[in-house]
Amino acid sequence: MITIEIKPPYLIFVGDETDTSYAKTGAGLIEWRPELCVGQIGINGGGIDGAPHMTIQEAKEAGVKSLVIGTAAIGGGVPDVWLDTLEEALAAGMDIVAGVHQLLNDNERLVAAAKKSGSRLIDVRVPPKDIPVGTGKKRSGKRILMVGTDCAIGKKYSALAIEKDMKKAGLNADFRASGQTGIMIAGRGIPIDCVVADFISGAAEMLSPDNTDDHWDVVEGQGGIYHPGYSGVTMGLLVGSQPDAFVVCHDAVRTHISGWDDFPLPSIQDVINRVTEIGKQVNPDIRCVGICVNTSQLGGETREKYLSDLSAEYGLPCVDPIIDGTMPIVEQVKSEFPE
Amino acid sequence: MITIEIKPPYLIFVGDETDTSYAKTGAGLIEWRPELCVGQIGINGGGIDGAPHMTIQEAKEAGVKSLVIGTAAIGGGVPDVWLDTLEEALAAGMDIVAGVHQLLNDNERLVAAAKKSGSRLIDVRVPPKDIPVGTGKKRSGKRILMVGTDCAIGKKYSALAIEKDMKKAGLNADFRASGQTGIMIAGRGIPIDCVVADFISGAAEMLSPDNTDDHWDVVEGQGGIYHPGYSGVTMGLLVGSQPDAFVVCHDAVRTHISGWDDFPLPSIQDVINRVTEIGKQVNPDIRCVGICVNTSQLGGETREKYLSDLSAEYGLPCVDPIIDGTMPIVEQVKSEFPE
Repeated sequence: MITIEIKPPYLIFVGDETDTSYAKTGAGLIEWRPELCVGQIGINGGGIDGAPHMTIQEAKEAGVKSLVIGTAAIGGGVPDVWLDTLEEALAAGMDIVAGVHQLLNDNERLVAAAKKSGSRLIDVRVPPKDIPVGTGKKRSGKRILMVGTDCAIGKKYSALAIEKDMKKAGLNADFRASGQTGIMIAGRGIPIDCVVADFISGAAEMLSPDNTDDHWDVVEGQGGIYHPGYSGVTMGLLVGSQPDAFVVCHDAVRTHISGWDDFPLPSIQDVINRVTEIGKQVNPDIRCVGICVNTSQLGGETREKYLSDLSAEYGLPCVDPIIDGTMPIVEQVKSEFPE
Repeated sequence: MITIEIKPPYLIFVGDETDTSYAKTGAGLIEWRPELCVGQIGINGGGIDGAPHMTIQEAKEAGVKSLVIGTAAIGGGVPDVWLDTLEEALAAGMDIVAGVHQLLNDNERLVAAAKKSGSRLIDVRVPPKDIPVGTGKKRSGKRILMVGTDCAIGKKYSALAIEKDMKKAGLNADFRASGQTGIMIAGRGIPIDCVVADFISGAAEMLSPDNTDDHWDVVEGQGGIYHPGYSGVTMGLLVGSQPDAFVVCHDAVRTHISGWDDFPLPSIQDVINRVTEIGKQVNPDIRCVGICVNTSQLGGETREKYLSDLSAEYGLPCVDPIIDGTMPIVEQVKSEFPE
């Protein structure tokens, strides 16, 4: 399979960060894959909730295979103050994994240390080589794709929540990561937005390969099909994923495409229509199975009415995945796709 | 402007090729930009029609600024047998321009020779750096985009023919190249299919920047909006180009997407509908102004009936650009967009 592969278990590196909201990747890993996060390591007093502090030596003894950089430095680089710890991890035989803007593989000290120990520097922003052009050929197994009325609207969270609830409901499911943070959480994936344009749908095909008939790939979405900057990525991911089902992710109070103030947010119906039309090219039976909404800006009663009205309007389960979970959507999937 | 820029005039390098159909890029340059093609140079008896043979020294004296590789070698590389001539051109101060699969900039002898003389090695498959994300902001001037029912269906040829006929009709027009051969012909452009996915529409915006109100960018299309492999590229180019008008390119006898035999060719109407729907996001007034059809497989009378039936069906000018030219489409543009 042509994807990035990260070896578990992990030691989470949080730098000098103490606020979970600034160490998002680390916090996401601890939230979604606690069983893979053996410990955390900080510098200058850094640390977040959810995993025991360890030295590199202790992590090595605990069997850690990868140190994952779970925070971002100002400027998106690898600050010199991180290097002693990272070199120590490489010397202990651990891979280092990062999604920072400046590549690990462009840092001379890290490259030299990795070469010496035989460890890998895994930049999850760099797609695997030899991604083919998409074939459109029907694959076995089933796929559910997250799409959104915008970027940064809960597609990754929704996919992870649906994977978790599908497993809880006894379904055979795997989260398929198409973005950097998702790849760190899943331990594998392809950063679709970093792939060369001709190979977007081919990369999406690699991301959800043939599988058993009862298996669901829960595919993290990217961009937005109406997005003025990123719709090409969304198009290629949709066509390559050939989804059987999709979920629309939305924000209850957002009115415009975030950062593109000239563009009103498309309606949920617009997104359902266009995704269905395009998706039919590669999967004639594609259908929407639910709507995930970020309702954090609504009060309790308003929130409940908003979701029930939406559900009545679309005839679909509508949930806030953070508050409600996604089990109603999983039930919809089970009823629409009986074994 | 963030595009590749090639300095004219050109010396066309044809290797040992003597058949125009195997030196397509060179032949295309001589067809569409004869005024820029000062001469040609071959090796081992190579040569095609349309430009005088010259030595490097003669070309230098004639003011040539770029040697353009106008043929492809088996395997897509730069054969050793080409290198003496290419080094001589670099030493004479010419840039070398190529769209071959193996990059000029990966060839040690050429890199060394270019460094010595200060000449450039221009790989037109490599997009410029620092392409931004698309903004979707409305630009001044007007744009006409070629779209297709498939790849390799005459989009580049149609765009070049429309540029030529627009100029003949007194319009202010420029061909905008989005592919390798087009870039060599235009002397500038961006290879949209080689851009990283997040930046496709941003690259398209760079390709057709703000212009005077009377100006038309005639934008070369890529891929196909229904294509299982390349629709992501087509989507990004469409959204970034924000076209006022578009032309559908089609082949009269093609029944399936070429190389993707499971996929029937979409109808012209399907393509018009989808391109219009998507294009409206960035240009509410987008409309189809004509259809260009490759009718080379039809007989004379069949051909005429085919095009007149098509024209009646769609209410649009329908031409074979190679046989008929594209003046009826230019007339349609003039009537739809009066000055």
